[in-house]
Amino acid sequence: MTPRKVVIDCDPGIDDAIGLLLAFGSPEIDVRGITVVSGNVPLGCSTRNTLQICELSGRVDMPVHPGCFRPLVRDPIRGLFSGSTGLGRLRLPAPSREPAGAHATDFLIDTIDAAIAADTTITLCSMGPLTNLGVVFRMRPDLVRGVDRLVMMGGAYREPGNRTPAAEFNMLADPHAAHIVFSSGLPITAIGLDASHQALSTPERVARIEAAAGPFSTVIGDLLRFWDRGDVDRFDGPGGPLHDPLVIAFLLRPDLFEARRARVFVEHESALALGQTVTDWYGQSGIEPNVDIVTKVDADAFYSMLAERLAGRVAIPGQ
Amino acid sequence: MTPRKVVIDCDPGIDDAIGLLLAFGSPEIDVRGITVVSGNVPLGCSTRNTLQICELSGRVDMPVHPGCFRPLVRDPIRGLFSGSTGLGRLRLPAPSREPAGAHATDFLIDTIDAAIAADTTITLCSMGPLTNLGVVFRMRPDLVRGVDRLVMMGGAYREPGNRTPAAEFNMLADPHAAHIVFSSGLPITAIGLDASHQALSTPERVARIEAAAGPFSTVIGDLLRFWDRGDVDRFDGPGGPLHDPLVIAFLLRPDLFEARRARVFVEHESALALGQTVTDWYGQSGIEPNVDIVTKVDADAFYSMLAERLAGRVAIPGQ
Amino acid sequence: MTPRKVVIDCDPGIDDAIGLLLAFGSPEIDVRGITVVSGNVPLGCSTRNTLQICELSGRVDMPVHPGCFRPLVRDPIRGLFSGSTGLGRLRLPAPSREPAGAHATDFLIDTIDAAIAADTTITLCSMGPLTNLGVVFRMRPDLVRGVDRLVMMGGAYREPGNRTPAAEFNMLADPHAAHIVFSSGLPITAIGLDASHQALSTPERVARIEAAAGPFSTVIGDLLRFWDRGDVDRFDGPGGPLHDPLVIAFLLRPDLFEARRARVFVEHESALALGQTVTDWYGQSGIEPNVDIVTKVDADAFYSMLAERLAGRVAIPGQ
Amino acid sequence: MTPRKVVIDCDPGIDDAIGLLLAFGSPEIDVRGITVVSGNVPLGCSTRNTLQICELSGRVDMPVHPGCFRPLVRDPIRGLFSGSTGLGRLRLPAPSREPAGAHATDFLIDTIDAAIAADTTITLCSMGPLTNLGVVFRMRPDLVRGVDRLVMMGGAYREPGNRTPAAEFNMLADPHAAHIVFSSGLPITAIGLDASHQALSTPERVARIEAAAGPFSTVIGDLLRFWDRGDVDRFDGPGGPLHDPLVIAFLLRPDLFEARRARVFVEHESALALGQTVTDWYGQSGIEPNVDIVTKVDADAFYSMLAERLAGRVAIPGQ
Repeated sequence: MTPRKVVIDCDPGIDDAIGLLLAFGSPEIDVRGITVVSGNVPLGCSTRNTLQICELSGRVDMPVHPGCFRPLVRDPIRGLFSGSTGLGRLRLPAPSREPAGAHATDFLIDTIDAAIAADTTITLCSMGPLTNLGVVFRMRPDLVRGVDRLVMMGGAYREPGNRTPAAEFNMLADPHAAHIVFSSGLPITAIGLDASHQALSTPERVARIEAAAGPFSTVIGDLLRFWDRGDVDRFDGPGGPLHDPLVIAFLLRPDLFEARRARVFVEHESALALGQTVTDWYGQSGIEPNVDIVTKVDADAFYSMLAERLAGRVAIPGQ
Repeated sequence: MTPRKVVIDCDPGIDDAIGLLLAFGSPEIDVRGITVVSGNVPLGCSTRNTLQICELSGRVDMPVHPGCFRPLVRDPIRGLFSGSTGLGRLRLPAPSREPAGAHATDFLIDTIDAAIAADTTITLCSMGPLTNLGVVFRMRPDLVRGVDRLVMMGGAYREPGNRTPAAEFNMLADPHAAHIVFSSGLPITAIGLDASHQALSTPERVARIEAAAGPFSTVIGDLLRFWDRGDVDRFDGPGGPLHDPLVIAFLLRPDLFEARRARVFVEHESALALGQTVTDWYGQSGIEPNVDIVTKVDADAFYSMLAERLAGRVAIPGQ
Repeated sequence: MTPRKVVIDCDPGIDDAIGLLLAFGSPEIDVRGITVVSGNVPLGCSTRNTLQICELSGRVDMPVHPGCFRPLVRDPIRGLFSGSTGLGRLRLPAPSREPAGAHATDFLIDTIDAAIAADTTITLCSMGPLTNLGVVFRMRPDLVRGVDRLVMMGGAYREPGNRTPAAEFNMLADPHAAHIVFSSGLPITAIGLDASHQALSTPERVARIEAAAGPFSTVIGDLLRFWDRGDVDRFDGPGGPLHDPLVIAFLLRPDLFEARRARVFVEHESALALGQTVTDWYGQSGIEPNVDIVTKVDADAFYSMLAERLAGRVAIPGQ
Repeated sequence: MTPRKVVIDCDPGIDDAIGLLLAFGSPEIDVRGITVVSGNVPLGCSTRNTLQICELSGRVDMPVHPGCFRPLVRDPIRGLFSGSTGLGRLRLPAPSREPAGAHATDFLIDTIDAAIAADTTITLCSMGPLTNLGVVFRMRPDLVRGVDRLVMMGGAYREPGNRTPAAEFNMLADPHAAHIVFSSGLPITAIGLDASHQALSTPERVARIEAAAGPFSTVIGDLLRFWDRGDVDRFDGPGGPLHDPLVIAFLLRPDLFEARRARVFVEHESALALGQTVTDWYGQSGIEPNVDIVTKVDADAFYSMLAERLAGRVAIPGQ
């Protein structure tokens, strides 16, 4: 079985970092490159974190392309739960190499162009604000045909927002880019708070990951304990929602997810509702659906897979 | 036990009509007057329907005060499920009297002023767009102290909207008035789609109301069969949500309802999210809660009470 | 010649105060009452100032009706150039009487209703935010036929704004009420910054008013010297634009004014352009004109008239 | 004297075409390339027109780079006065070559990067919606230091809009890109309607251009007669405002222009005021100025220069 060719766009961020480690531990996925965006932390910081996570995983071959320095139209906002460096209390050695020279959007365009030329497609994974992808698909709307799917973390479809009452962080951070991507014609699977709030890093799950005793298990344990937002009131118990790794998990085990297709509009004009993913569940708008919204996650299976993959014991289903 | 003094503001509308019949059939409630607003149908039509429902109930003594001719700022929209007259296929004799001379807002102001003068309070019930109440509390913000509670039908707090993906009809119809009322300082219980979508008029429930064989049971059966929106996809079965009568039911049997208190903001600037009740469930805004939002309804008990009251067999709990 | 029946809605404010004195000194105008609104200063303060100006003019018979306590939708803003009391450094004795009992909007409705019953009309003069009038014409849109014209101070039609780059103060203070009034069907003459910035209270003009030696000339001189905003950069010399008295001057001497008719829309959604009077000078919208916008004022003639009227030497043209 | 190195971004369009001809006829300007954007006409059409104008001028060496296919966020709008092809009734031979392969934004980035590497700067000229430039400066905000000035046609600073009452066409066509560019830190000279409405192509001026008998004079005469919008009511006579060539004229003869520096904000949220260039002439916002706004043009001198240059009789001032 040929590994699936993907490019990951991210802004690490604790949960992005775990998502990258999960991807690196998964032979079903051939990560062709990583593009970085301003989001949880400034671009320089998210680039450095990406390089460090690559190095931690022994992937110094992985091209890391910094992209847009700030959101398209609105001013930048930053994440609240990854600490000032973006990796909580984790301290990693300075990266031994520079990021790649090409801009993230140029790398994406070249990679997709190459896929089209080879009569194949690329899968895009997005774990941060959609600024880089927004620029790509405004520069080159024709590239949509070179992407088999965008699997993205972002949005709050039935759930309330996490950064404001109306908006999830990635959508709020660049609602205009999100609007571009959602109206681009790309096939999209959206993993929003409706999904990630089902996948809480409870103390039991964190303990199981640590007990798995792989090369990254203590790193992950550290990250996840920092990540816990103490949102007991909201989640009826300790443990934070593990957003970004679900994007990779969806590629590995789509059978763990249920989705419903609907039209999603991104609010980009109102201060109150900025970044809201207004979802037309019942076809009231008369506009055709554009997003497969994940509504259900088998969280136990997800955490088991996460523990196994991070411990290096990869069991690929069907093999 | 002294009946509770209420004024009902409404725009009948099939479900308003049922709400009025329920109120008239409930000795615990002393309806001091009905004010009418433009909403489901134009003001002239909702006024006529109110007069007819009063007459049907033998309440020709009931003062009916027409109010605002249209929403405060936006253009009028009309209801989709009450038919062109506002009462479905129901045909009632022309009213034998004229509406009262005083404008709805003047009647409301005078009534609340009188309550304050008598050191009592009034309960306001709202079943339509909040235009009349918005005008009252902008003209006289001090009147808040004469109102013990506003119980209102409107909003979609976790549910998607019913008229647009973001908005429930009454909020969409006058979002500026809703903003005024929600920021007025009034104690508010909001019965939105989260509540009313739990209270579907299934064929079994309609049959039970008709079988109760009271003076209005066939009328109600007719109305409810027209009301059924055929929204099987949304509700997993036939039967429409019976919004407005829940307002009266809340006064009669608050024990059938559960509510959660939160800050609600009404979107009144964005076309996409117009009329949305953006709800700060987790205190992210730092602004104190202003609304008790009904999250759960005992629908079977509600329909049983409705059938009994409409059949004239009033069983008052605790008596 | 029968004096023209007018009601003045105002929020004194230095220039409102001068406008009232001009009206009181003009026998062509029969002021039937004054309604007061929240604006330059809070309602209690503008009401007190109105009572004091009446008393200063010997008009203790004049009904003064306080109206709306705050703008319809947005939060209140206050004027910057009238000082904390609203009358600059002018100190007047406490009023000897209470304001009238009826709410401004009720007084306006009753007065217009009476005019309609008598087959006549009323002229409305507005010198502040349009909140009271907005409420009146939403409560009773039919009253438009009892008003021959609304002459109002507000808006910036070609000029930039004075409170923000986009908006004049009265429009910014209640853009939603302005929207209601501008779309009400009332015949409107709008005196905005385009007019008032032609009518600067230069030192020479102030000196001439004081030299006129009438009962109010020193009061007016005091007020106008406080009023000077020192906006030399903007106006190429000292002296503030005398907005509100132009409303009365227009009633007395329409021949001093030129106007152009156009469609005006009031921005009420955008933070940046809030309160802007977007003007369709060239019929691009395809919507019929609704406002006669004053584009030119004979400022010398206006100040001469002002000096004469305030000195008590009334020379009525054509008599 | 070394010619000034410029890149022209345009969407021909009749007045863009004349602007290009003026640039090609001016040895003071070294056009390094032309980038094309969606605007007056779709991208394919504006690219073809650009190639044709190059060929007409014998400039088949000129690189022409197509750029963004549509505006960043909003849906495309098209010009009203250039006809369906974008060049009125002018019919030119099909271009003999293809456009350059590199995307407009890549060409701009490479060109500015090269200028920085050579310790020089580039002048950018914009005659259309700012989409391409918006993408460039969001991808690479650091490139600002490689641009000595952006001279752009767009905006209505004191004038009303030409496409809506509030907005000039180029700003309305991509208000989000305009916001990006205006807040990028670029030194900007803006030539808006305030300037171009002073430069009408009156019949006398058109006749003079035709009489100049140069190679393009009949072409220009044809274009300008089509261009005349018959806006006699607005401009007190026949002849259309010749927007885009003023950008080139400003480079050639800055002494013909007067400008005033102010902060400009681009409205991108409100439907009514979308694309408006809200201008803080009097420093009310407290934010430092960002644009030199042309307020006055010596139109006669401009048209004389245009006639001379298009006739091939180039008289460079000071030489």
